[in-house]
Amino acid sequence: MHTFHNPKQIAGPFGHYEHGVETALPGRLMHVSGQIGVAPDGDVPEGIAAQTKLVWQNICAVLAEAGMTAQDIVKTNTYILDRDYVPVLAEMRKRFLGEDHRGASTTLVVSSLVRPGWLVEIDAVAIAP
Amino acid sequence: MHTFHNPKQIAGPFGHYEHGVETALPGRLMHVSGQIGVAPDGDVPEGIAAQTKLVWQNICAVLAEAGMTAQDIVKTNTYILDRDYVPVLAEMRKRFLGEDHRGASTTLVVSSLVRPGWLVEIDAVAIAP
Amino acid sequence: MHTFHNPKQIAGPFGHYEHGVETALPGRLMHVSGQIGVAPDGDVPEGIAAQTKLVWQNICAVLAEAGMTAQDIVKTNTYILDRDYVPVLAEMRKRFLGEDHRGASTTLVVSSLVRPGWLVEIDAVAIAP
Repeated sequence: MHTFHNPKQIAGPFGHYEHGVETALPGRLMHVSGQIGVAPDGDVPEGIAAQTKLVWQNICAVLAEAGMTAQDIVKTNTYILDRDYVPVLAEMRKRFLGEDHRGASTTLVVSSLVRPGWLVEIDAVAIAP
Repeated sequence: MHTFHNPKQIAGPFGHYEHGVETALPGRLMHVSGQIGVAPDGDVPEGIAAQTKLVWQNICAVLAEAGMTAQDIVKTNTYILDRDYVPVLAEMRKRFLGEDHRGASTTLVVSSLVRPGWLVEIDAVAIAP
Repeated sequence: MHTFHNPKQIAGPFGHYEHGVETALPGRLMHVSGQIGVAPDGDVPEGIAAQTKLVWQNICAVLAEAGMTAQDIVKTNTYILDRDYVPVLAEMRKRFLGEDHRGASTTLVVSSLVRPGWLVEIDAVAIAP
């Protein structure tokens, strides 16, 4: 019933999980693991803009393996280390979702992410016909 | 496949997202964005009780646009700034869900929310026939 | 449409929520509340290994009431107080999900959980035919 998606363009997974889990309902439900700003070669750039762009590229890569796009996202959770990142996050979100798709969202400032140097993590739920 | 819900009784959305996303499955799945204690006029009252009541009113307003009620909620995530808020949260949750409906729940103390002065944020998943 | 699961092997629920919510779609969707490392008698052992093991036993107990197993999990969110717990979490996750099932995952370090002494909380979404 489930199809797992770990695109080669994304480093990891770094643990015992899939980057994406697709579930065949009438409608296909995808849970995308929390993506961080890591490049395919494992490099983590400095700065919230570069990391957020990679996060979204990673989310889109997971979706693409299932024939989905960012426009199929129904919910994201965004976890950041500093409230000052919000304007950059908002701009990047609009760029990747497009003007006409928004999706539900929760954004939180947390104590830290799993590795030092990670500034932002976003997970997503997507559903496609 | 998706219907978006941004009731006029709720200020915002404050970014590139919907307050609610309804998905037509056999069964309608709703992801409600993290709601904060902001009144329709944008005012954020002081105190956890007033803010939590507004959060729940906002959640119910999103659901109502889809013909749903709090009794259709299957999961909430509650994010707070202080563990001492828990008794107030619990009382308000029961008031809005009703004695006979409870739903799944996760509650976390986080570092901060997107704006100073916000004390609580709750998001929800609801499903109705 | 919903079936609620509160296995006797799990202490609580400690508030106005269910441990598990099962939803009959074509495919049964289960939202498992954030589980903490509490034994059936209410005891919370010291140490991340003992607590994480109990968390997973609790998740599996919720799933079992619906005739589900850890292999039906499609997403988990793991909330911890210290990044140093990650290796233990990873080992326990593999033990309970099994070598051949992984599921999507997000892991965050938060400020605190609802009660002092709780070191880890994990919630889950599962889907079974």
